[in-house]
Amino acid sequence: MALHEEFRQFEIEVGQIVEEMRAFTKEGEIATYIPELRRADAGALACALYTKNGTCVSFGDKDRVFTLQSVSKVVALALAVMDSGEAQVFDKVGMEPTGGPFYSITRLELTRHSKPLNPMINAGALTVTSMIGGRTETEKVERLLRFIRELTGNDTVTYDSAVAESELETADHNRALGFLLKGEGVIGSDIEPLLDVYTKQCALSMRCCDLARIGFIFGHEGRSPKTGEQIVPVPVARMVKTFMVTCGMYNESGELAIKAGIPAKSGVSGAILGSVPDGMGIGIYSPALNEKGNSRAGVELLKRLSRHFSLSIF
Amino acid sequence: MALHEEFRQFEIEVGQIVEEMRAFTKEGEIATYIPELRRADAGALACALYTKNGTCVSFGDKDRVFTLQSVSKVVALALAVMDSGEAQVFDKVGMEPTGGPFYSITRLELTRHSKPLNPMINAGALTVTSMIGGRTETEKVERLLRFIRELTGNDTVTYDSAVAESELETADHNRALGFLLKGEGVIGSDIEPLLDVYTKQCALSMRCCDLARIGFIFGHEGRSPKTGEQIVPVPVARMVKTFMVTCGMYNESGELAIKAGIPAKSGVSGAILGSVPDGMGIGIYSPALNEKGNSRAGVELLKRLSRHFSLSIF
Amino acid sequence: MALHEEFRQFEIEVGQIVEEMRAFTKEGEIATYIPELRRADAGALACALYTKNGTCVSFGDKDRVFTLQSVSKVVALALAVMDSGEAQVFDKVGMEPTGGPFYSITRLELTRHSKPLNPMINAGALTVTSMIGGRTETEKVERLLRFIRELTGNDTVTYDSAVAESELETADHNRALGFLLKGEGVIGSDIEPLLDVYTKQCALSMRCCDLARIGFIFGHEGRSPKTGEQIVPVPVARMVKTFMVTCGMYNESGELAIKAGIPAKSGVSGAILGSVPDGMGIGIYSPALNEKGNSRAGVELLKRLSRHFSLSIF
Amino acid sequence: MALHEEFRQFEIEVGQIVEEMRAFTKEGEIATYIPELRRADAGALACALYTKNGTCVSFGDKDRVFTLQSVSKVVALALAVMDSGEAQVFDKVGMEPTGGPFYSITRLELTRHSKPLNPMINAGALTVTSMIGGRTETEKVERLLRFIRELTGNDTVTYDSAVAESELETADHNRALGFLLKGEGVIGSDIEPLLDVYTKQCALSMRCCDLARIGFIFGHEGRSPKTGEQIVPVPVARMVKTFMVTCGMYNESGELAIKAGIPAKSGVSGAILGSVPDGMGIGIYSPALNEKGNSRAGVELLKRLSRHFSLSIF
Repeated sequence: MALHEEFRQFEIEVGQIVEEMRAFTKEGEIATYIPELRRADAGALACALYTKNGTCVSFGDKDRVFTLQSVSKVVALALAVMDSGEAQVFDKVGMEPTGGPFYSITRLELTRHSKPLNPMINAGALTVTSMIGGRTETEKVERLLRFIRELTGNDTVTYDSAVAESELETADHNRALGFLLKGEGVIGSDIEPLLDVYTKQCALSMRCCDLARIGFIFGHEGRSPKTGEQIVPVPVARMVKTFMVTCGMYNESGELAIKAGIPAKSGVSGAILGSVPDGMGIGIYSPALNEKGNSRAGVELLKRLSRHFSLSIF
Repeated sequence: MALHEEFRQFEIEVGQIVEEMRAFTKEGEIATYIPELRRADAGALACALYTKNGTCVSFGDKDRVFTLQSVSKVVALALAVMDSGEAQVFDKVGMEPTGGPFYSITRLELTRHSKPLNPMINAGALTVTSMIGGRTETEKVERLLRFIRELTGNDTVTYDSAVAESELETADHNRALGFLLKGEGVIGSDIEPLLDVYTKQCALSMRCCDLARIGFIFGHEGRSPKTGEQIVPVPVARMVKTFMVTCGMYNESGELAIKAGIPAKSGVSGAILGSVPDGMGIGIYSPALNEKGNSRAGVELLKRLSRHFSLSIF
Repeated sequence: MALHEEFRQFEIEVGQIVEEMRAFTKEGEIATYIPELRRADAGALACALYTKNGTCVSFGDKDRVFTLQSVSKVVALALAVMDSGEAQVFDKVGMEPTGGPFYSITRLELTRHSKPLNPMINAGALTVTSMIGGRTETEKVERLLRFIRELTGNDTVTYDSAVAESELETADHNRALGFLLKGEGVIGSDIEPLLDVYTKQCALSMRCCDLARIGFIFGHEGRSPKTGEQIVPVPVARMVKTFMVTCGMYNESGELAIKAGIPAKSGVSGAILGSVPDGMGIGIYSPALNEKGNSRAGVELLKRLSRHFSLSIF
Repeated sequence: MALHEEFRQFEIEVGQIVEEMRAFTKEGEIATYIPELRRADAGALACALYTKNGTCVSFGDKDRVFTLQSVSKVVALALAVMDSGEAQVFDKVGMEPTGGPFYSITRLELTRHSKPLNPMINAGALTVTSMIGGRTETEKVERLLRFIRELTGNDTVTYDSAVAESELETADHNRALGFLLKGEGVIGSDIEPLLDVYTKQCALSMRCCDLARIGFIFGHEGRSPKTGEQIVPVPVARMVKTFMVTCGMYNESGELAIKAGIPAKSGVSGAILGSVPDGMGIGIYSPALNEKGNSRAGVELLKRLSRHFSLSIF
């Protein structure tokens, strides 16, 4: 079979899998806590695979534009470590998925930390965002935009102002986290400007192919698929994938590590970023969520792709 | 360079690394809560690598016999899933490294579960052990011995009675966990006989080459390195490695996933089992522990081996 | 109005109040976790008032015999302090209703203690029972029986064997608490014999007039209403009443301190002991419980009696 | 002995007790988290008793002016209940000193609430302050000043601006609590203006005789000692005293209920308000605190006065 035909076959197979997974969208619910997110189409499902030959194949509702929400936490983490250094970042944020000591009592896993547990929980993510380079909020947002455009190779990527504003209005919980962390000396900057940067970061919006390309770069030691240029340092790309496995999918991380074994990060918008080490970059969008807050169809698709193409790292 | 010489070179390199790491034994402390463990030699360091060609090379104090302690949790997990089925086991024990929802408050990560969080914490491990096949405790212990002998390829492996008895005497905390889980309906069997099996399981004792062979089998889809026979089913071998990454090294799991990236499980005896997917099996023993309860020199050795041979899965 | 007529009037008033409160029995549920308790008559309501002139007047289903359950915690506390001394008891058990520091986070009141918070929670009560005088369990139970007979002035009071056995069978949670406390060095004695004493203590059974007399003695500086003999030392009687106010009515203690203001202790059998300083002793029994675990009609009756006779200490 | 002489004798006795307690000031530490409080004189001790005959006798450094800090929580509670009604206030704030269910695990008393536990913890106090009457912050502060002047009978009482400003600068923890409660819908008003009212409330400043008069009014059913006018409704005065007993002295409340038995509320400034039902009003000031955050000498003085004059309510 010629290479061309092999690729056609691959496209047909994935296209079928994606359409089979669409049924799962009916079992999920759209997130409602951010007013703007309520407007999503509950039946939508898009999937993009960024493959080794430098091309992106995409399926389903592939032209939908969506916001990253918590997926942006891994982007911000990479950037903060590049800008402020690993030592500085992990002086303020932990590296552990769990906080409980091994001898802790059965159902009462209890943790006390002087710093946020890890960069994937909101408290940790806020702290991480405070360490993105830039003297002003405007500079920080611009730094973030430059970086996301480099990662996606798409200069039109920006944040969705309506979503950012909508989140800022309902950000009292994150505001509380911010002031707590400031009171504890973990965050040094002012909270309102930080929330402004953070909500814009969460509101970064793109198509599934843009997302898949980010996954590809993290999967390939941080190098640009076109030029081979080092966009993210090797250890940072590796670290990002590690956090994706241990705590990228909320309280479903452990189960998905077993059942898919692909470093992945999800957001309440229904986005999922997948990054196969030395393999494909994956971008999924489907806004109907399961009770853990992950895209219902997206999670099934990730497991199915892993089985179909033997993508598990374990 | 001939294959033979290449292997000699490999042996020399690892031998040097192991001796360099020995200095770290001075920075650790021997566990004292089990009286029998106090008798360990704080300066000891042993390391075995079970390699693809089916041979084990070992270094340092390689003839020391040590008990598995918490390393046995992954062995018992594999066995319980084989005997009782994945569905039954994970109906009683969770799969998640962390229990906190993503929106939880900064330093107070709080979790409540109706079942133990995962099989690597004591509560989960006790529950797992209760699901090893056998109508009586004697049968369960024999089942465990047969399995560990198959994994190590060593029919002389057994449990250390003195350590098992010593642990049983100081097992009030585990006894409390057992009764709590029984009261909650998570554990169905009687607690005292279960504790008897559990302490014998923790007291399984071996040399570093035996341990490395276990790692090799989990790393190679559960197949015997000699016969190719399926000792552990493929999905079980994969699952075990996943738990090793997400919660195998106590509260240092996240950091070691980043810094070594090798599925690994440690015990308070100073044992560390490493299992590189499709690569080496690693057995380390060095009883001086760091403040997280992991072997001080063992952790350094694991990181060093990962860098030296590029073993990270990320 | 002659004294005799006044008393008649008093009896008529209370009798009316008790019958009015009976309607509340329909809003409660009988405790089911101890099999023997399920057999109680959900509509029952009994009330006894032990008054200054040394007589007990009782109302409703006044001849029902019921077990004390958690009401026994105050009896055991008094006895343990008398037998082991205040210093020894409060070296092992705390005095505080709440554990959270004043600056703690809104809804997450988190507490960590090296000893049980107070003698009214099960962990504290088990510890207290371990400090009742006696070299053997038999001696401890006899000591308890002698004390309860002195307090009630009724030599026929004993424990209900069927209830005690029923509790022992379902005592895994208390057994777990016991082993935890033993593991922590808080409880020194063996757990099974302690549970035997504890369940017999909880199963002490009596009529409402017996209970009211206990309340009278605690309310009158520990002195016998007949002989004036000091059955309980003055500071112990005062301490017992204090714990009744701050944590005697489970998670309804604060509300009842405001709405009734009478030192009171309840049990899941539906018993409530009330002790007005320098006033009446109150014994209530009505087994239908509210969602806090307190007797539904009993709580209403306590509030009503407080208002009617101005019994609040505040 | 003539009444006059009796009173002289009383003055001499209390004067001696106060001076004896002064030694305890050396065992405490001044609170440092609010910069302005650091300027206090660590050796100061003042005590005022407002007695039934309508006079205030004071001792020690009786002319010191101090801020109320957490003592103001009981004043604000009375006012909020008067302005917004008991139902409205306790729809938003709990009444319980402790949140843990009676069966909770030994040392891990864990609580989860959808509203602040009680009005004496900061989260509850912020919520209470938000329910003081007034359309604007200015109106609320004026309402508070009118009320405190009525309670003290002293029209010169006001808040200390320097302390209020100092607290506002270091209020990130309270700010975080505020935003959390706003995010949960417990607090409806804006947080910054609320913090402004709250810090002024905490900074209300007075002499010990002013404080003792407040205690006298709460102790005498809310009536003015001069005119008999009802300044605080009877049930509100009673409720305030109840909270003082169950949770007025931070984590020392239980112990002090046993050892003093006087409804009391303390603040980190070193102020203690005591309110004996139908008895004296007590105002104490001594800024050196014990490790629970209560005035070191003040606590000893309270216990001593209780014993000397038999003031315990139990």
